[in-house]
Amino acid sequence: MLFTCDVQELLDGLSTASRALSSRPAKQILEGVLLETTESGIRITCTDLNLTIETYVDATVKEEGQVVLPGRLFTDLVRKLSGGLLEINVDDKNIAYLRNAGSTIKLSGLSAREYPRMDEPDTHKSVTLPQSKMRDMINKVSFAVATDETRLILTGILLEITQSEVRLVALDGFRLAMRRLSGTYADVAAGETIETVVPGKVMSELAKLLSTDDTPLTISFSESRMELSFGKTKMYNVLLAGEYIRYRQIMPTTWTSRATIKTREFERAIERASLMAREGKNNLIKMHMTQEGLVITSNAELGDVHEKLDLLLEGRDIDIAFNVRYLSDVLRNIDEETVCMRFTSNVSPSVVCPAEWEDYLYLVLPVRVFE
Amino acid sequence: MLFTCDVQELLDGLSTASRALSSRPAKQILEGVLLETTESGIRITCTDLNLTIETYVDATVKEEGQVVLPGRLFTDLVRKLSGGLLEINVDDKNIAYLRNAGSTIKLSGLSAREYPRMDEPDTHKSVTLPQSKMRDMINKVSFAVATDETRLILTGILLEITQSEVRLVALDGFRLAMRRLSGTYADVAAGETIETVVPGKVMSELAKLLSTDDTPLTISFSESRMELSFGKTKMYNVLLAGEYIRYRQIMPTTWTSRATIKTREFERAIERASLMAREGKNNLIKMHMTQEGLVITSNAELGDVHEKLDLLLEGRDIDIAFNVRYLSDVLRNIDEETVCMRFTSNVSPSVVCPAEWEDYLYLVLPVRVFE
Repeated sequence: MLFTCDVQELLDGLSTASRALSSRPAKQILEGVLLETTESGIRITCTDLNLTIETYVDATVKEEGQVVLPGRLFTDLVRKLSGGLLEINVDDKNIAYLRNAGSTIKLSGLSAREYPRMDEPDTHKSVTLPQSKMRDMINKVSFAVATDETRLILTGILLEITQSEVRLVALDGFRLAMRRLSGTYADVAAGETIETVVPGKVMSELAKLLSTDDTPLTISFSESRMELSFGKTKMYNVLLAGEYIRYRQIMPTTWTSRATIKTREFERAIERASLMAREGKNNLIKMHMTQEGLVITSNAELGDVHEKLDLLLEGRDIDIAFNVRYLSDVLRNIDEETVCMRFTSNVSPSVVCPAEWEDYLYLVLPVRVFE
Repeated sequence: MLFTCDVQELLDGLSTASRALSSRPAKQILEGVLLETTESGIRITCTDLNLTIETYVDATVKEEGQVVLPGRLFTDLVRKLSGGLLEINVDDKNIAYLRNAGSTIKLSGLSAREYPRMDEPDTHKSVTLPQSKMRDMINKVSFAVATDETRLILTGILLEITQSEVRLVALDGFRLAMRRLSGTYADVAAGETIETVVPGKVMSELAKLLSTDDTPLTISFSESRMELSFGKTKMYNVLLAGEYIRYRQIMPTTWTSRATIKTREFERAIERASLMAREGKNNLIKMHMTQEGLVITSNAELGDVHEKLDLLLEGRDIDIAFNVRYLSDVLRNIDEETVCMRFTSNVSPSVVCPAEWEDYLYLVLPVRVFE
């Protein structure tokens, strides 16, 4: 195997693929990055057996071949090279020789025959949407994914696709975040809903790799697997098995109190209250809403915080308490100027969403502290 | 105690003083920040008993007094306030009420009478130099301070002052860094040398607080203590007791080989070699210098790195090995385009310094690997 390529392009490819490297690989070969000559340059592949990322780097191939090189070390070395042209020559003992400017680096690899091969999923449906939109959708729900693995399915994000909508849902038993995007997805039949649960970690890695522009991302499905394809990169991954919670049943459809509050003011007041709530260990804040305004309080042995804000209240006055972290998490993700909260009682799930926009919706369970 | 001040100015003061807060305070009162009304506004003091930092914040004082407030929580709360004017009212039970925009925060404090008082050191000598120079000098030697506390004196930085020079020295048994600044220091008699050893941690905190401009820093000494005064801030600290190593005796005065190398090229080659050296666990690189050039090598089970660089060599060819970290540390701190290394043999201390400038000098012990 013998080829030359640009140092920076190779580094970009390695940085992308190596996101699939596990920090605790099950066997030695999984610490490696697979390099293969193809007609479209060098294919770079990393996998942790659940998630596989492959990407391509332009190269002048002088001799075909493939090799598995130690992933982290190879990436770190390429990062430190001087730039410009790099020649990589791999002998029949899988030893690679890297030549760039005054550097000659010898690196022992493993045979590509040992590398686990994932079949390309036999996909039957696919949807395409702008990368930036998917990136934003993931970022706006992924914080609500369960970190506790006792209910494995909740460590995933539900991806629900109909002919007219892509929807992401994450929930952990205390709160739920939902984000949807309208569109026309021709592969999906009228009345059909594709439902898959993607590991939260895979979605976070995807969000990091997606670009901030509108170039397309194509998502394709088979029974148990998914393929994400964008630019020169493909991610394959194994979906979470099992049925997701019937979340629609817990979405409130009515309200008795509705409060409209300036988002940034609300966020800052919550942040101050949270400093004291954290001291108090219970992480609790109380909200008291009347026509006069919103009063937020938190307390601890060391003192208390009392915040008074303007609000527009429709319906009944209400006293309600929350785990402060659940409110900060969502407020941080609302870019709109005003935020709306809807309540039916101080013991039932409350809704938080941008005031004029229902494509992002957050549900949070209050803490029972009032009679 | 009742005063008003600007939120941002108070935050700046608290951020400065709280650098003296210990992460593991010996008693509760040391978690606190002492606030006192004075004729120059509010004096803010923090101490860990070794290092004391005090600074001033402009304020409109309506009622004199003093209080000790919980340091971290108070600083965090002020950081999150909306900005503008803050009123602080402390009652006779040491409870502070902070009022700013819609926020009212109650914070339980402790009596200022409990706070440990440090006498101002009875200083008899002082020198003044530009803050930016001292900042740079500290940053260029502090990495060589010993981290191992078995020889406590080496965890400090030697500060040596004569009528014409301020000098900082740090050494850890394997390497030494020296930086000096010429000047005229009138308080020091001709022939006299002031020698003090300042804890490395204090010097690092000082470097973070010093400005990058030429406003003055005044250093004053008593027998066992030092006062550092700059802008509105004073740091007092206890010096390390004991005698510092007679480092002048180990400074080589001659050389048999002298190599001049481009600094950044050398640094990058060392970085690549260090990646492989780290894999090899011994962290070792070898240097082979002849009229032909400099060859740097490192190896591990996974492979090896071979770097060839131009150099200008005077004197004998030499083969020598180093702990790679000791070379990276110093190269990172040399801003000049070319660096000079001087050797007497491959088992005696080698000198590294900017090629045309002897005010910064670094000494490193080679590793014995050659016959």
